[in-house]
This record gives sequence, structure tokens and C-alpha cells, in this order.
Amino acid sequence: MDYDRYDHIRAVQWRGDHLHLLDQRRLPQEECWLDCRQAADVVQAIRELAVRGAPAIGIAAAWGVVLAGRSGTDMDTALADLRAARPTAVNLMWALDRMRARHAAGADAAALAAEAQAIQDEDLAANRHMGELGAALIASGSGVLTHCNTGSLATAGFGTALGVIRAGVAQGRIAQVYAGETRPWQQGARLTMYELVRDGIAARLIADSAAAHLMKTGAVQWVIVGADRIAANGDTANKIGTYQLAIAAKYHGVKFMVVAPSSTVDMATASGDAIAIEMRDPEELFSIAGKRVVVAGAQAWNPVFDVTPAALIDAIVTERGVIERPTAQAMQAAFRA
Amino acid sequence: MDYDRYDHIRAVQWRGDHLHLLDQRRLPQEECWLDCRQAADVVQAIRELAVRGAPAIGIAAAWGVVLAGRSGTDMDTALADLRAARPTAVNLMWALDRMRARHAAGADAAALAAEAQAIQDEDLAANRHMGELGAALIASGSGVLTHCNTGSLATAGFGTALGVIRAGVAQGRIAQVYAGETRPWQQGARLTMYELVRDGIAARLIADSAAAHLMKTGAVQWVIVGADRIAANGDTANKIGTYQLAIAAKYHGVKFMVVAPSSTVDMATASGDAIAIEMRDPEELFSIAGKRVVVAGAQAWNPVFDVTPAALIDAIVTERGVIERPTAQAMQAAFRA
Repeated sequence: MDYDRYDHIRAVQWRGDHLHLLDQRRLPQEECWLDCRQAADVVQAIRELAVRGAPAIGIAAAWGVVLAGRSGTDMDTALADLRAARPTAVNLMWALDRMRARHAAGADAAALAAEAQAIQDEDLAANRHMGELGAALIASGSGVLTHCNTGSLATAGFGTALGVIRAGVAQGRIAQVYAGETRPWQQGARLTMYELVRDGIAARLIADSAAAHLMKTGAVQWVIVGADRIAANGDTANKIGTYQLAIAAKYHGVKFMVVAPSSTVDMATASGDAIAIEMRDPEELFSIAGKRVVVAGAQAWNPVFDVTPAALIDAIVTERGVIERPTAQAMQAAFRA
Repeated sequence: MDYDRYDHIRAVQWRGDHLHLLDQRRLPQEECWLDCRQAADVVQAIRELAVRGAPAIGIAAAWGVVLAGRSGTDMDTALADLRAARPTAVNLMWALDRMRARHAAGADAAALAAEAQAIQDEDLAANRHMGELGAALIASGSGVLTHCNTGSLATAGFGTALGVIRAGVAQGRIAQVYAGETRPWQQGARLTMYELVRDGIAARLIADSAAAHLMKTGAVQWVIVGADRIAANGDTANKIGTYQLAIAAKYHGVKFMVVAPSSTVDMATASGDAIAIEMRDPEELFSIAGKRVVVAGAQAWNPVFDVTPAALIDAIVTERGVIERPTAQAMQAAFRA
């Protein structure tokens, strides 16, 4: 299958002696690249959201460790700084643990670079594999709806949920893609639409609140989303708005798919109830594109994530396989340590 | 009850020889007023959304008829132009039919002005009455969520759904108000927050897609919305996103209230299936605050309204009374001609 045709974007690129990062804050208006030559540059890029998406953050951090090794930066400090750059990202911890283990085993700069490259290559391969696994669930001629950005920009390439969509398009299963804006950061409007238009995939942007009406028209058969953390019972934390989509999907008989690498699964978290929801600055709702749109003196409630209970999920797709109608038992069988 | 304390805004004001309109396009950044001296000025204000909200549009149009009468404009032309300014607004047709009947009965300029004033006064009185009817359904200490703007700006004053909220706050029943942004026009962010902050009502803005997560926290007991059209079986067309809120409310056991003047009820429309949903320019999703945020070449799907089925509605409140768990039979009993 010719997946390359729908997979042109590489946002995290190692260039032999530095890390070349597509600055996602400036997309789609400008394609600007950052060159990180120190681990501290990578910390800053993660912290300021120049690089975003759980797998992409992990990969960038792994290269940050390589930069620390090359420049002789104290490795404990570098690891701690990278870990603190985005404290809730499970993939970040996973990638850093892997690099730390290689360093502890005495890896030199070349061996650290090989490990970072392996993390990156494995992520791309996992995404291609998840794409095939997820696409196999989708009937020919389907419409799908996605949320936030889970594509090449958020990963080593191809994407997780958006990888399933790329594979489904390549296989002729998906006839139309809809993308929610994903307020307040507009990752769907800014980033997913950028990817889909660049890769020539027919896509329509919708307001997040138009999703239920879209489902009612019969235009979508699957909602396909990524995950920030998947608990041991299948409950899934993801971008705010995911839960609302899952409820609307259940109401309309639309299927709901979560796509994420197995490093997103956190078997130490029993259920979604144990996942703390990060709250962010109300200012994100008060100003749009740098312009204040809400009256002075207003307050806001601005959670970043929500939790979709496993009962609303039809399939969890990881590179290890598909879990349909996830339960704690099925998750335990698939992901026990 | 001291409702005046929470009701300071009057966006449509007759000033003896002209109509003084608060330009809602420029809120909350600027409080600019338009002076309409010809019916054509009112047509333009309605068409360009300087005045919005079904009841406010109807009232402004009634004053447009008065201006036509005063200036000797051909009345058939004026009525047709006003009617065409916002073709889907039921209240607009209703107000113009009322003015047309007075004109046809030989009303002079003063009598036409008296009729327009009556329409405006009756709307305010109806809103105060609906406020009391709706608030009586709300238990003390409740949190409520509203959508779009249904307040003083959208009516002669006090508002419909926001009138229930004002009454509920005044009566001490409502402890916290949440308002959805209401993409893409941001009426909730721009207008509802403006009203609530100006009237000293504790309110928090949320992203539209955060509503289900908010409900899960137990913070809201009622969703309270307005209506653009209510069909004969209780199905309700309202701002895009309303349907999604109703589904999420049902899922969480949160109650759902529709508040609108009886002029919004269209007994000639059997059900929501017969209501055509207006689609608007994709450009509304591509640019925010005048700045392009979506990649060139993107497409969008941008419906303005959706239909909430009566089965998801716990109460329809009009000035004629409350219909709980609306059915075609109950609607027929309340609104038969």
C-alpha cells in the first residue's frame, strides 16, 4: 500500500549534530524551523509547545539526551530538566527512562544517538502498523471525525489517530475526513487541517460543537482520536472535548476508536478517576490570535483534558494489536508487565 | 424580587425620532451605538448582525416600520426589505405581521409607534415572566450552563434563557453560571460574558467542548438555552452546539430547559426534521479576530443551527407557561391556534 503518498511531514529531524524542529506554534501561517544544539534548547522547545504531541515530545527529549551527551552536560541534570518540561506526558517519561538506561549502561554519544534514532524509527513503524490495524476496522466509503492533532506533527511521522485515517484513505476505506477545531488551542484547525491539506486528503473543518449534528446527518461512521494516557481499565485521557464526542457517538451509534502507542498505556493507573485533569490559564479563552475577545473581569474554567470511560470506546488500537470493547481484563491480558 | 439589579442593558432604544442600537459586532471591546433614521438603516443593522437575537430583531424591525411610516417610505417595500433581512427568524416575521396589520388598519405614525412600543414592552414583560417560571424549576444552590447569547442584548431586556438565569440568581437559586464560548461567532464569550460581568453575576466561560466534562464534575444541574424555532412536537432549533449539550446532559442526568417567547413556536412545522439548517460561509471557521488560522485550500462544514429532539428536553418555558417533557400532545394543548 502506498502510504508515503499521504505522509510527507517530518517535524522532528536529527541533522547529525543538532535537532531540527518545525515550530508548531507558527503553523500554518509560517513554516519556521528551530535548531536545537543543547539539551536546554530542547527543554525550551517542549515547554513552549514548539514541539507538541506525546510521541513527538518523547522523541525530541531523546535527542535532547543525545545533545547533552555530546556537549558533556551533566546527564542527571539534563534528564531532570527534560522530564520537567511537560510533566504530564507519559511518553516523555518513557523515552527518557529508555535513554537513561542506555546512559547508565555506559553508552557513548554514538550509542545514545542510535537509541534516540531507534525510538524515532520504532515510533514511525508503530504508527504505520497501528494505521493498518485501525483502518481494517473501517468499512469502505466511511466518513470519520477526528479531534486535536495526532498526526505526523505529533509523532515521528504518519500519526496515531491520523495515521489510521491516512491508512484508511490510502486503502480507499475513508471517503471523507472531518476535523474538529479543538478549542482553545485550535490544534485541529491549525495543525490537522495543515497536515491533511498538505497530504491531499479530503477534509472538512467543523466547530467542535457541530459534531453531534454531523453525526445525526449520517456523515461519519467512526470518531478516531489519540490518547494522552490510557488507564488499566481502558479509560482514556485525551484532549478536552474527546469525552463529549464519545457521548455523542454512542447516542448516534457511531463507533469510537482510540489510537496510541503502548507507551501511552499506564497500567499503574487503575481507572480514569485516578487521572488528575490539568487546568490551564483562563487567558487561553479570553484572547484569540492575540486579541482580547472577552470582557474585562470575566472568569473561566479551562481544563485541558477529559477522561472518556472505556464503556464508550469501541476499540483501542496500539502497535500490539486491537482491543475491542476494552475492559480491565482485556487490558490486563494485553499489557500486563 | 429585585430583578432590576441584574438587568441594566437595553440594546434597542427608541429615541422619539430614531432607533438607537448597541452595535453587537463590536462588543465587548467597544460600546458603539448606531442611530437608524430610515427603515433601510434597520435592514442593514439586522443583515449585518449589529442587532441580533430573534426577539431583538423583531423589535428593531417593528421600529423600522415606524421609521418607514414617518418618512413616507412605501410600506410594502419596507416590509419586504425588513422581512428579507434575516429570512429564518420567526420572530421577525411575527413582529412584521403585527405591524403590517396595524398599517393595513389605517394606523398613523403615532399608532404604529405605539404598536412597536407594545411589542417591545410585551417582550420585556414576557421575559420577566418566563424568568420566574423557569427559575421556579431550579433547586437552591444550583449551577447552570448556557449557550450562545439569549440575554438583554438578544431581547427587549432581561433575556429568555439568560432571563431565567437572572431570575434564578436574584432568587438565590443559582450559585454559579457557566457560559459556552459558542463557536464560531463567540456569542457566549463576547456577549453573554459581557452581560453577566456587567450585571455582577458570577460566571465562568468554558470551551464548548468542555461541557460534558463540566457535567461529569457535578457542577451543573441545568442546561438553559434559547430557541430559534420550536416545532409542533417540541423539537427545538437553536444555535449549533445546543444538540450536543442536550445529549451530554441526558447522559449525566443534568436537566435541559428551553426558554423562548411563544412567538418562537411554529405549530405549522410538525417536527425538527422539517426545519432546514442554514449553512454559513466556511470562512467563519478559517479566520479568528480577522486573522487567518487555517491553511489555504482547506474546506469546512459550518451549520449555524441544530435541532434538539423533544425527548432530550425536560422543560419548554414560554410566557404562556411551562411544558415539562414536551410532546406533540402537550404542545398542541398549549399552542393550538
